[in-house]
Amino acid sequence: MNKNKSTSKIRIKDIAEKAGTSIGSVDRVLHGRPNVSEEVRKRVEQALKELDYEPNRYASALASNKNYRFVAFIPSPELEPYWGEVSQGLQDAIQNYRDFNLSLEELYYDIFSPDSYNKGLKQMLDRQPDGVILAPQLSAITYNFCQHLKEKNIPFTFLDSNIHDLDALTFYGQDSLMSGRFAARMSMLEAAPEKEFLIVHFDLPSLQQYNREVGFREFIHKNYPGSVIHELSISPKDPKAHEVLTDFREKHPDVHFVCTFCSHTHVVARFIQEKGITDWHMMGYDMLDPNVKYLKQGIIRFLIAQHPWQQGYGCVDALFHHIVLKKEIKRTNFMPIELLTAENCDYYLKNAKTTY
Amino acid sequence: MNKNKSTSKIRIKDIAEKAGTSIGSVDRVLHGRPNVSEEVRKRVEQALKELDYEPNRYASALASNKNYRFVAFIPSPELEPYWGEVSQGLQDAIQNYRDFNLSLEELYYDIFSPDSYNKGLKQMLDRQPDGVILAPQLSAITYNFCQHLKEKNIPFTFLDSNIHDLDALTFYGQDSLMSGRFAARMSMLEAAPEKEFLIVHFDLPSLQQYNREVGFREFIHKNYPGSVIHELSISPKDPKAHEVLTDFREKHPDVHFVCTFCSHTHVVARFIQEKGITDWHMMGYDMLDPNVKYLKQGIIRFLIAQHPWQQGYGCVDALFHHIVLKKEIKRTNFMPIELLTAENCDYYLKNAKTTY
Repeated sequence: MNKNKSTSKIRIKDIAEKAGTSIGSVDRVLHGRPNVSEEVRKRVEQALKELDYEPNRYASALASNKNYRFVAFIPSPELEPYWGEVSQGLQDAIQNYRDFNLSLEELYYDIFSPDSYNKGLKQMLDRQPDGVILAPQLSAITYNFCQHLKEKNIPFTFLDSNIHDLDALTFYGQDSLMSGRFAARMSMLEAAPEKEFLIVHFDLPSLQQYNREVGFREFIHKNYPGSVIHELSISPKDPKAHEVLTDFREKHPDVHFVCTFCSHTHVVARFIQEKGITDWHMMGYDMLDPNVKYLKQGIIRFLIAQHPWQQGYGCVDALFHHIVLKKEIKRTNFMPIELLTAENCDYYLKNAKTTY
Repeated sequence: MNKNKSTSKIRIKDIAEKAGTSIGSVDRVLHGRPNVSEEVRKRVEQALKELDYEPNRYASALASNKNYRFVAFIPSPELEPYWGEVSQGLQDAIQNYRDFNLSLEELYYDIFSPDSYNKGLKQMLDRQPDGVILAPQLSAITYNFCQHLKEKNIPFTFLDSNIHDLDALTFYGQDSLMSGRFAARMSMLEAAPEKEFLIVHFDLPSLQQYNREVGFREFIHKNYPGSVIHELSISPKDPKAHEVLTDFREKHPDVHFVCTFCSHTHVVARFIQEKGITDWHMMGYDMLDPNVKYLKQGIIRFLIAQHPWQQGYGCVDALFHHIVLKKEIKRTNFMPIELLTAENCDYYLKNAKTTY
């Protein structure tokens, strides 16, 4: 048994013969250059169709010698290390296609400052980009910005959160509702037969975090109707966070499992470790180093990863394939909802794509 | 805040100027052609170093116009559909690089027939391949075959199972021991507080399956020392399989969780469904359609995926980057150990790489 697949080449010469014209004319049609009569153009196009010719898009792109300027706008990695991995994905994709004259500028915003977001959007337009990558905030200015890009025919991609109405070229991110349902199912496996548990919120303006909690609560409500969900809201850098948690523990001795829906999981895990608490365990999001440390110690029972590197890489990849290679792009790219424990976390592929 | 990364181009002209030679000489050095004096070669190489020049490997590969013949040898997808996904990955990678004149021939073997394996290996050598992809069986003939490839400088990659001593160019597959430990941890979350459960073996000569069970037993032995592990061995197509399982159920009413370590999980799941059994649940491997069906029905509580598409794609990708682009290759590529339930299985990325 065997199966053959060959990428046999159709030569320009074959096309010219079939169309009854010169090699030069075929070349002009293939590369969209002038000085070909309408009649010859039609004959060449017919020949291409009959020969099932696919142009060598890499060769065309290299030959064009154009420069492409992409601009990305994401939350600052200094304030949330999670975004450093998105940034790495963006950079790795640019590096992978370095032979095609791509350049990328990254601009960052402070998620707590609408002003820094608004200013950054204006800066992006000043750059006159060929393509835009955006982690969008739900606001009127985002709508205006994207409308402006559409008018100028500048393709844009979304990552992390999607705003469906704005019809981006592509979206890379997690289905946050399903992610929350999955988190609930796995939490109940860990927490059962307990009936009470705690959700810790962090004060972040994040649509993703909000939707995960909606999915989580839906699942619990439907499958474990007798459960009691407590909640606390803390700020990641608040020095009083430990006091708030200590106070909660004293008042709720029957709670032993804590759920968090963002990458600051380690803030609660550190509290558990520093206080020497042995009857609290927890779940959270994102494979950041401080989270992994507590995952391996068993304080965090599992993390859900959402592939930030892949989101960054994918957005550049999509712009490259759309703008440079002129290929069709998949509109929605949901990231896997991946469960990681102490046993399998070392095999998590940060970089789902092999780059050499 | 912003960060710039540009792929600014160094022109051949700049190199020639720096080396004090002609553009023609630089071109000859870059493409390894003759007719350059040793002295000029050294000056050009020095200039390349100082300018931090990286050649455009895509352009070089396209210009060379060479053909590359790869051959893959894997178990027959007709006998085990799992291998169809490996095959799809191989084909997709060839298609992705179709502009570079790659061809791939796939040969298949019957895993129950050492003879078909041995014959196939001989056929592969007859093809005079430029690169080889192999799902290896642990046998003397594999050693001889790989030794022969090494003598002829033909690079080869392994997928599914690795044989470390043979020093393949790269390996794509799962760490099966850790996979088994992870399976045990998740099974115990599902099965607890039960003390007895069942492992169903399928008669397949698979190193992977064997090692997973070793990891599984290790974990249980260490963390749940009072547990009783029963085992049954059935053949996937044995018409008496249901009788064997029915008999077991009657004798062991305290068993309610079944573990399997290969893609034939659905054989047991079908038994559970057809008999209308409600007090047996199970886990297994691989995101094949019949398995996913029972996963969504809740009979299979979770599957562990091992990314067969990615294994196939990665092996072609590695050969392409090594042979055509002459880049360095990562030696070991462990696949993620990915847990899939009814909630998150729709977001499993069969194709971890986006191909447009």
